[in-house]
Amino acid sequence: MPGTVDFWFDFASTYSYPAAMRIGALAADAGVAVRFRPFLLGPIFQAQGWNTSPFNLQPAKGRYMWRDLERLCGELGLPFRRPEPFPQHSVLAARVGLYALDHTWGEDFCRALFRAEFGGSSRIDDAATVGRVLAGLGVEPAPALAAAQSDPIKARLRAQTEEARQRGIFGAPSFVTVDGELFWGNDRLEMALRWANHGGDAR
Amino acid sequence: MPGTVDFWFDFASTYSYPAAMRIGALAADAGVAVRFRPFLLGPIFQAQGWNTSPFNLQPAKGRYMWRDLERLCGELGLPFRRPEPFPQHSVLAARVGLYALDHTWGEDFCRALFRAEFGGSSRIDDAATVGRVLAGLGVEPAPALAAAQSDPIKARLRAQTEEARQRGIFGAPSFVTVDGELFWGNDRLEMALRWANHGGDAR
Repeated sequence: MPGTVDFWFDFASTYSYPAAMRIGALAADAGVAVRFRPFLLGPIFQAQGWNTSPFNLQPAKGRYMWRDLERLCGELGLPFRRPEPFPQHSVLAARVGLYALDHTWGEDFCRALFRAEFGGSSRIDDAATVGRVLAGLGVEPAPALAAAQSDPIKARLRAQTEEARQRGIFGAPSFVTVDGELFWGNDRLEMALRWANHGGDAR
Repeated sequence: MPGTVDFWFDFASTYSYPAAMRIGALAADAGVAVRFRPFLLGPIFQAQGWNTSPFNLQPAKGRYMWRDLERLCGELGLPFRRPEPFPQHSVLAARVGLYALDHTWGEDFCRALFRAEFGGSSRIDDAATVGRVLAGLGVEPAPALAAAQSDPIKARLRAQTEEARQRGIFGAPSFVTVDGELFWGNDRLEMALRWANHGGDAR
């Protein structure tokens, strides 16, 4: 029986970008099913007393992160252009992402929005950006944006963020196997896929 | 001409343990020379207003780290027993490490002390532990411990820690190439070795 991994991400999270671009092919190779689960890191950071990304609160770590992300994208052949401001407000993106993932084009939407943000330096809090990404997938923007701002989607995003916290998630991307094993960071994607298939016997 | 990587580590740093155990063979395979450079993370953390490890300040991240380290050690076949307390005071270890690295048995000392700490849950702030590790390498403990507590070694450790800060190091392990490229974390060891040999053309 194939394993399943929940892929928890925030659209504002830098390392969620390479993870989102890599996970499809790697999971297919591993025979693991993936569920894309957008959530909001903001409330989790705020509960720790942080009012912005730790990459802004710790300048040396932040400078490093941008250089590291640039190198990573270079090795992966992914376009990279640093978005301003950082972090982007990701509430709109997460709501549209949740709505999109009820449809066959949901994962394509997530990848295209990440690419617009970190590959094209587009603002994801701008409905024009999100609409352009939707249109690029052949989806009419106005009804999708309206549906994404509905009360049921808003409530689902709040619940999803609360579930992330309850699962012990403190950063993004994170990967969680069906038996609750947590893996944090783009660097742990391969290990998460091994564990999804073999549990503690993964070597 | 072979590349060189400076391996910056703190003996109290959890992920410095697998990095120290892995770097020798990987660097030899890559044809890269490595310089072991112990330093103290404490002053760098204190400059950020932290009085202990971020793994203690952020409980969810700390819980995750211990589980992650246990899994990593399992995959690498390294013994793992969580040391108490955490973090250990690593001043004595770093001084003896600096002294040791002036000798042919220096890297063996570093690996053996990491193994005692994270594989055997021994206290590295205890001269008895350090002495036992020295004796295991055929080194007479008392003169080595005395030399390591000399003023010149103390001054070198302070200078080394200041150099780490100036190089932008904010955590351990870190790897720095001769052209100043910084890589943070055990997960970046392989990439650092590629960059040491090929610079920005590493793929």
